[in-house]
Amino acid sequence: MRSAIPKKSVYRLSVYLRCLDQLHETGVLMVSSHALALAAGVKPTQLRKDLTFFGHFGTRGLGYEVATLREKIRDVLGRKELRPVVLVGVGNLGAALMNYKSFEKEGFEVVAGFDLDTSRRSKLRQPVLSMEELKSFVRSHRVKMAIITVPAAVAQSAADHLVSAGITAVLNFAPVVLRVPSHIVVSNVNLAIELENLSYFRSLAEH
Amino acid sequence: MRSAIPKKSVYRLSVYLRCLDQLHETGVLMVSSHALALAAGVKPTQLRKDLTFFGHFGTRGLGYEVATLREKIRDVLGRKELRPVVLVGVGNLGAALMNYKSFEKEGFEVVAGFDLDTSRRSKLRQPVLSMEELKSFVRSHRVKMAIITVPAAVAQSAADHLVSAGITAVLNFAPVVLRVPSHIVVSNVNLAIELENLSYFRSLAEH
Repeated sequence: MRSAIPKKSVYRLSVYLRCLDQLHETGVLMVSSHALALAAGVKPTQLRKDLTFFGHFGTRGLGYEVATLREKIRDVLGRKELRPVVLVGVGNLGAALMNYKSFEKEGFEVVAGFDLDTSRRSKLRQPVLSMEELKSFVRSHRVKMAIITVPAAVAQSAADHLVSAGITAVLNFAPVVLRVPSHIVVSNVNLAIELENLSYFRSLAEH
Repeated sequence: MRSAIPKKSVYRLSVYLRCLDQLHETGVLMVSSHALALAAGVKPTQLRKDLTFFGHFGTRGLGYEVATLREKIRDVLGRKELRPVVLVGVGNLGAALMNYKSFEKEGFEVVAGFDLDTSRRSKLRQPVLSMEELKSFVRSHRVKMAIITVPAAVAQSAADHLVSAGITAVLNFAPVVLRVPSHIVVSNVNLAIELENLSYFRSLAEH
């Protein structure tokens, strides 16, 4: 059943969860689908459709119990424990992500960085290790997820190292398409493309 | 006609352009749709479909002229001039993005950062200015695009400032849904959600 959920719905679930977290923090017990959809920036029909993948929620006319829906989504997204993540490429962006507070708040801990130059980042609280140490670290710490923030030219090599160390999920910031075995999950964040897209749609909006 | 192009196709155009740039750099003159699709990580049918939005390209059996297709996509994406961008929130992530070399390579220049604390980032080559200076800077430099890297709690306020200064496109890294007038284009990059999604699909792949 879980594999039938569209990728976009899973993404929106994460957004709903953050809205529910905020409601929970401010003491709200019930929320209408209309209000939750508005907070999440989607249409109420979209919200209801996304939630049907997980069975029946809510009471017509009353809305959703914040605590119940929140627990249910956390369950589905596997948000129970803090998950360790390694990062390869401790440049400006890599170091910023190693310090990125939202990750820990959301259940992820970047436990170590790996780089060719292990000396230059003494200010980080996590260790910066050499690529030779990657495999044994990943195995002994049972890490399954990695972030790649190396330059494009060495990203494939970094991915190969990670895969052979046992990593099965990669968040890739390098502007290249990584070749990995089919059981490895890769998600790409290309910040330059995000800007380019934005620029394109901005010019459309002005004409 | 341009507004009929789906958002996902525009994103893939940016990916194709990067592949064509690489081919161009290595002296390749012609490329088959199969090879270009492989490099971009999409199916050849997808590539051909995306390119039909821009008229007819390529010769059956011969493929595409790299230089021509590259120029055409650059044209469509508006990649002719260096576009100025301002950034609000010069923390770790903000500072890393102000130093992010890929932006400039891709035609964007982060020309200034804005923060409540204008003193702490003396190492940046760009000026870090106070929020009071935002409006006059944006107007005098004719900036239309902005990046938001402030904490969630002040992101809406940052967006309001930007919109009233004349910004029409925002790349938002704060984990909130921004409320902006309908002519403003917002693109959200939520790094924690990216990790969460990755984690979800990883667990699917293992079960």
